[in-house]
Amino acid sequence: MRASQILIATVKETPADAEVISHQLMLRAGMIRKLATGLYSWLPLGLRVLRKVERIVREEMDRAGAQEVLMPVVQPAELWQESGRWEQYGAELLRIGDRHQRDFCLGPTHEEVITDLIRNELRSYKQLPANFYQIQTKFRDEIRPRFGVMRAREFVMKDAYSFHQDQASLQATYDTMHEAYTRIFTRLGLDFRPVIADTGSIGGSGSHEFHVLAESGEDDIAFSDSSDYAANVEMAEALPPAGERPAATATLDKVATPEVGSIEQVCAFFDCPAAQTVKTLLVYGEADENGKQALIALVLRGDHQLNDIKAEKLPGIAAPLTLAEEKDIKAALGCGPGSIGPVGLNLRTVVDRSAAHCADFICGANDEGYHLTGVNWERDVPLVEIADIRDVVSGDPSPDGKGTLLIKRGIEVGHIFQLGTKYSEAMKATVLNEQGKEQTMIMGCYGIGVSRVVASAIEQNNDDKGILWPDSIAPFQIAIVPLNMQKSERVREAAETLYEELKLQGYDVLLDDRNERPGVKFADIELIGIPHRIVIGDRGLDKGMLEYKHRRAEDNEDLPAENVLAFISERLPR
Amino acid sequence: MRASQILIATVKETPADAEVISHQLMLRAGMIRKLATGLYSWLPLGLRVLRKVERIVREEMDRAGAQEVLMPVVQPAELWQESGRWEQYGAELLRIGDRHQRDFCLGPTHEEVITDLIRNELRSYKQLPANFYQIQTKFRDEIRPRFGVMRAREFVMKDAYSFHQDQASLQATYDTMHEAYTRIFTRLGLDFRPVIADTGSIGGSGSHEFHVLAESGEDDIAFSDSSDYAANVEMAEALPPAGERPAATATLDKVATPEVGSIEQVCAFFDCPAAQTVKTLLVYGEADENGKQALIALVLRGDHQLNDIKAEKLPGIAAPLTLAEEKDIKAALGCGPGSIGPVGLNLRTVVDRSAAHCADFICGANDEGYHLTGVNWERDVPLVEIADIRDVVSGDPSPDGKGTLLIKRGIEVGHIFQLGTKYSEAMKATVLNEQGKEQTMIMGCYGIGVSRVVASAIEQNNDDKGILWPDSIAPFQIAIVPLNMQKSERVREAAETLYEELKLQGYDVLLDDRNERPGVKFADIELIGIPHRIVIGDRGLDKGMLEYKHRRAEDNEDLPAENVLAFISERLPR
Repeated sequence: MRASQILIATVKETPADAEVISHQLMLRAGMIRKLATGLYSWLPLGLRVLRKVERIVREEMDRAGAQEVLMPVVQPAELWQESGRWEQYGAELLRIGDRHQRDFCLGPTHEEVITDLIRNELRSYKQLPANFYQIQTKFRDEIRPRFGVMRAREFVMKDAYSFHQDQASLQATYDTMHEAYTRIFTRLGLDFRPVIADTGSIGGSGSHEFHVLAESGEDDIAFSDSSDYAANVEMAEALPPAGERPAATATLDKVATPEVGSIEQVCAFFDCPAAQTVKTLLVYGEADENGKQALIALVLRGDHQLNDIKAEKLPGIAAPLTLAEEKDIKAALGCGPGSIGPVGLNLRTVVDRSAAHCADFICGANDEGYHLTGVNWERDVPLVEIADIRDVVSGDPSPDGKGTLLIKRGIEVGHIFQLGTKYSEAMKATVLNEQGKEQTMIMGCYGIGVSRVVASAIEQNNDDKGILWPDSIAPFQIAIVPLNMQKSERVREAAETLYEELKLQGYDVLLDDRNERPGVKFADIELIGIPHRIVIGDRGLDKGMLEYKHRRAEDNEDLPAENVLAFISERLPR
Repeated sequence: MRASQILIATVKETPADAEVISHQLMLRAGMIRKLATGLYSWLPLGLRVLRKVERIVREEMDRAGAQEVLMPVVQPAELWQESGRWEQYGAELLRIGDRHQRDFCLGPTHEEVITDLIRNELRSYKQLPANFYQIQTKFRDEIRPRFGVMRAREFVMKDAYSFHQDQASLQATYDTMHEAYTRIFTRLGLDFRPVIADTGSIGGSGSHEFHVLAESGEDDIAFSDSSDYAANVEMAEALPPAGERPAATATLDKVATPEVGSIEQVCAFFDCPAAQTVKTLLVYGEADENGKQALIALVLRGDHQLNDIKAEKLPGIAAPLTLAEEKDIKAALGCGPGSIGPVGLNLRTVVDRSAAHCADFICGANDEGYHLTGVNWERDVPLVEIADIRDVVSGDPSPDGKGTLLIKRGIEVGHIFQLGTKYSEAMKATVLNEQGKEQTMIMGCYGIGVSRVVASAIEQNNDDKGILWPDSIAPFQIAIVPLNMQKSERVREAAETLYEELKLQGYDVLLDDRNERPGVKFADIELIGIPHRIVIGDRGLDKGMLEYKHRRAEDNEDLPAENVLAFISERLPR
């Protein structure tokens, strides 16, 4: 492609309303333009990237045996009523009425439509397993769309849905999708982690999210420094500390601690590390037959955070997990939340594994304005119920027993999920089994945020000059910049020849034939993020040389003109 | 692809609610399924066709220098209010409110969005011309969606919009698009005609429709048997008959014709051909300063049809063209519409060119229950105003002077249109010209109904067994049918080898490895419409032979196994 033939709409100024770097750079590089809140048009340069992502996703889904279909954006309400989601789904589901006042919605996802389609098409267990995908426009009416295409209202998604006769078959397709996703994000050139994700009520290891690691990510990912273990911080197991709990050395003491409530205040008051303290949180238990909810104490080390998901899964705890109100605490204990401690507490008490390993620790005295020091389990307070109820922290041992956990931020770009029979049961999607009896199909679903991948690639790959695209999804792989092309016939000829040769080799090349100063061209190419740049000028040609620069390199390299193809094929293997 | 790995959802019965053959065959061949009225899911086989159409369209648009973009499906009302279409567009525009009660619509077309985008991106005449296209989902809330994807509510369209500094530049891009469309429909393997279409108020030759010829088409296309002239019947000029008008031979006579009103009745009464009669239609003229509308008479030969578009363009005639009500006719003439004639008529009278060439003709007498015979122009009635106001008919001379017109039915699949400044003026889309002054851009627009192309290809190519796809868009080019593959190792091996060889050559091959009877496979492949079929069986292999059959051929051909590649490359040149 010639630069004169494609809209290069670069902008110098950083747009005021773009908070994250990918949004800023996509606007500045002329990849997207905002149409309305959460709605973006893709300009030619941006669309080239989007299409490359789509192609890689499509190739790997095909290779994994999934079949491509295309379902409508507009979906009838009836199906959502059948699944129960018409009522459950919040305002993100954009509901619309057609000219005949029939209810429809813009599809945020297609479980209902595919389940309806497949229950009518597949009749026998012999037709299973089957996996269907589409790459298609979706709409979610986000209350606060932001970060450009990262969290837009209209976006491009690859969604797939698989159908099975039994759990083993679902697991096999799930594993195949896990591999396909790994290939996809590897081919996209991204630093990513498949992380164990929450499955809600389903349990087991039936869900993985694929995260692109980037500072700006909204999720915390815990992963091992020595294995491929990775999980959402909420999901990572905090192993019990190694070894025996240290023996008690201090005596129990009650200390007046006026105005001391938070862990920071306790540490300051006693001049001790937070790991030497424990905190006690009260939450509500499930309602008894009279509707009464008992209080339950959760004890954590002072430097650890309660993990809501883990705590909520404990038997007898009310969901959603809710911290007790101050008035309920005062009524039960006679003190405020800053003075609670496990000693003498007449409540069910769940102690986190790490807190249970503490000795000589400090805690609230259940007496307003007092703390206990030198507290020891068993000696001063019984240790009845131990559980993992905290978030892991950097430095924790990896739950798979290999290495130490690191924590980084991630952007969720993919999700694979064992749906089970949630939709197939509600919508009566059955096949006849070997015995000729109706059997409900088991389902899996597999999504990739195609347009979000583009933004996340930028979040992970950028510098102060612009975008640093991976080769596989750059809008162009190579930029040829002829110097003084308008005047030097020799430069023009060399540039045109190289352009044709590289295109013939199958490379995606931009010939910058614009009548602009070299500095303008260089800046544009760096902002747009084309990975390989070849400059052709009269001075170099005198010596038979061109100039090569990789977008990530500091300096130019001299490149003998006759070696270009070999040089490039080494840098850009296909 | 292996047939066992793709959903082949063929159906024997013709679906009751499918009126046209393409709709029936797309359902029966398992190409699409209905989700709701006017909403269809594309199954894997159908989507393969759709994607091939898309690819051809994309390649030719790229080759023609258009740049691909992608604009949102959901569009803000503000832009449509700016262009004035928010009010003008009827109920086909599906208007929606988002969670914040802001108005949006589902895009039936994207003039507003592209004009908004481009007015912000292009600043100088130096950036013109520019042509942007997208292939994207559109929505029109048709009052009566029907014919499957032919007239669906949600559909896939390629729409392009070009921007220019002057008319010459628009004309050049328009011509380029005309050529690109011709290449596209040629590559799609369709029998089509680019036809001159109505441009409404713009006039000139600024609009062509591309029609696929098919019996079931909704439009009448007139085209020359000896040149490439083609036009919508409404647009084709009816030339004046050759030669002088015959001399008068009969005398004027007034005949009582009780109960005779229509041309059929006149012909039956007088036992004469319709071409010997003229009919006189009264329409309303433009309102005068008092709001009064005079009646105007339009005179046509009895066997010709009034052409509303031509008549409406005559000066002084009210638009839209409206036939006078019976009470107005009676008040003015004292007779009903069946007895009107030009003789002695005290109204402005416009005579069609062919009617003006009649001699000794029969017409109403402006006296209820009477007709005149032996009427002649000039002698009996002055001939003041002659115009082309009729539809052309088969056998008329071609307006370009070459050959004779034929009339066939067509399905509109493409449309190119010189928009002028309709949108750019309303939305202030300007660039700075050579003098540094704001200048309104001139626009063109160019559409192709991508999903409709699929249906129209079937309308044109089918038989009683199913679809007859052109090679370029068939879901698979070649089907390999092994006989008894489950038992004969030799057949399996030969089939697998041939499958791999043909794939390696770049062909799109379906290996029918299903455990079905040959008759079932043959019927499916014929219904699905795969153009080339190769059958492999033990009996043939004994003699080193395979069986080849083209979908359109009556019989099988014996094909030496060692010649397959050469044979196929002759039948399927790439």
